[in-house]
Amino acid sequence: MPLVGLSDIRDGIEKELADFVSTRANALREIDAYLAPVANALSQYIVSGGKRFRPTFAYLGYLGAGGEPSQSALRACSALELVHACALIHDDVMDGSDSRRNMPAIHKRFESQHIESNFSGSAERFGVASAILLGDLALSWSDWLLDESGMSNQAITRANQVFQEMREELMVGQYLDVLEGALGKSNRERSLKIANLKSGKYSIERPLHFGAALAGADSAIFKTFSEYGLPLGQAFQLRDDLLGVFGDSKVTGKPSGDDIREGKRTVLIAMALASANPSSRDEIESALGNTNLSEVETTRIQVAIEESGARAECERLIDQLLDESLDSLKESYVAAEVKSLLEEIANLATKRSS
Amino acid sequence: MPLVGLSDIRDGIEKELADFVSTRANALREIDAYLAPVANALSQYIVSGGKRFRPTFAYLGYLGAGGEPSQSALRACSALELVHACALIHDDVMDGSDSRRNMPAIHKRFESQHIESNFSGSAERFGVASAILLGDLALSWSDWLLDESGMSNQAITRANQVFQEMREELMVGQYLDVLEGALGKSNRERSLKIANLKSGKYSIERPLHFGAALAGADSAIFKTFSEYGLPLGQAFQLRDDLLGVFGDSKVTGKPSGDDIREGKRTVLIAMALASANPSSRDEIESALGNTNLSEVETTRIQVAIEESGARAECERLIDQLLDESLDSLKESYVAAEVKSLLEEIANLATKRSS
Repeated sequence: MPLVGLSDIRDGIEKELADFVSTRANALREIDAYLAPVANALSQYIVSGGKRFRPTFAYLGYLGAGGEPSQSALRACSALELVHACALIHDDVMDGSDSRRNMPAIHKRFESQHIESNFSGSAERFGVASAILLGDLALSWSDWLLDESGMSNQAITRANQVFQEMREELMVGQYLDVLEGALGKSNRERSLKIANLKSGKYSIERPLHFGAALAGADSAIFKTFSEYGLPLGQAFQLRDDLLGVFGDSKVTGKPSGDDIREGKRTVLIAMALASANPSSRDEIESALGNTNLSEVETTRIQVAIEESGARAECERLIDQLLDESLDSLKESYVAAEVKSLLEEIANLATKRSS
Repeated sequence: MPLVGLSDIRDGIEKELADFVSTRANALREIDAYLAPVANALSQYIVSGGKRFRPTFAYLGYLGAGGEPSQSALRACSALELVHACALIHDDVMDGSDSRRNMPAIHKRFESQHIESNFSGSAERFGVASAILLGDLALSWSDWLLDESGMSNQAITRANQVFQEMREELMVGQYLDVLEGALGKSNRERSLKIANLKSGKYSIERPLHFGAALAGADSAIFKTFSEYGLPLGQAFQLRDDLLGVFGDSKVTGKPSGDDIREGKRTVLIAMALASANPSSRDEIESALGNTNLSEVETTRIQVAIEESGARAECERLIDQLLDESLDSLKESYVAAEVKSLLEEIANLATKRSS
């Protein structure tokens, strides 16, 4: 398995995920025929898309730390995508989001099954219960995939230390995010802190450290990956903030302006509220969390945020964080070919449109 | 650490759980002061009670397979209680249950926090989101506790194979249970199959196998534990069915007749529907899932189930399964002192009143 391009790595991750979930889905169908909808829904959800950033960063972390290219390492890194599947499935329940990647959210899919099958009781409750359990299953599977990756016990033990921290940070980052919405006030410092937990650490720094731990790296590599990963993670999250307000629904797979209706207290929103004139500020504040916002009203809020200068400020900050991130690689002793892949993915992660 | 009685084992488990959650709770408070409610709620939930059957069975499995009594093994076995905490927290969200162990369910606790703190948005939604995330955190912590138990990498790897199967069976057992309620018809075969997955395997057989795997047991021990654990697990679940209908709320910590209002399709209910006269059958059927059932109506249903003969049939079946379970130990080469503990806990698990 030679060192290759980002798209080969991604293809490898897809294959490992598809292999694993097809084995597990078959096992479920054997336990009980009534588990077919669970097997189908969860395996389709996991194999149908997603950018695979976290396993890719993990594998680059592994290679960057001097790990030999191997299918086992690729398989171990793919475990991160199962944690992410749990996060997305549960997130959609918590947000009440109906769709993800242009498909119905898992709770909506099971709600529809309830209605179509004329089940008794509440279809909504059935959908939510199913989604909670499918998310739990994906989270449980994440350990399973790592354990059976074929990496040595020592490598798995090292990676597990990072894996545990990463999952805890994800869960508490999600909680703080929900809490921020409930507190109902925007504060750029708090929003940055949460973005740092949820993206800086969870999406980029921890995956790189996970891979480095798999490879048995020394502390210098961990430090380089933090210097590269933390600013990049912030930039990644800022891009998410921009897409959550200005994204094209055909590309993102989520309705345009979703973050406004969900009342998300993002860094972008904090910037807009700090810079907008009083009447625009009031307008933005009252739109946040209004789930009935019309398309016309959404457009007005988008314009208000744009005119506050927050969109441009966000773009400038992304560029600055990206530069900072890439600078960290220059002096590091990460192999040149891995450096160029890390540069390529940094650009992808911050300049994406979905 | 000498081989001791069940109450010493239980005390040891309490201590390991308290140690672990206090370390993690402090770590959360250090990540962010706003995480104090999460740290407090989850650590109180985990340390405040529960019968600790699963870690106890696991430790007995470890000892029965010839493992040396050790704090590390006790710590590793305590990981099972964290999986169970996730199951209970999520179960209460799915069932819409307001209390657990005479305390508010986690989603209710966070719903109250929302109301008392005058947060914005829906208090119910905030409660549900928090409970989903706290359950996810408990599930993630279960691996963490096993990993840092101090057992060897080899022992952890062996135990993990059982752990993975166990968690998958738990999640799919829960799903099948929810589905059975939605299908809205009782079938003794199906109910038994689900009880077997949820209790036979999850609560008893798998914990014993987990402990046996930690100790590096041979296949004869695994077989003995299946023969002991599966009938015992069924008896354990039948006791749960009886307590869910006839239990004393002061002892169980749940309102009396909770299973009727939740519409649970248990083996007991299937027996009652099969044996009751037509008018009682209709009465029971229409009460199942009626969340507004009054106390008087609940008593009428309890009487109808009793008069159908199902309660007595259930008790007879419990006795029979318990005998079957204990018989399996006679010819086995489990050490005599562990055998007597397994007999003691089998009686406790099937004759309990909460």
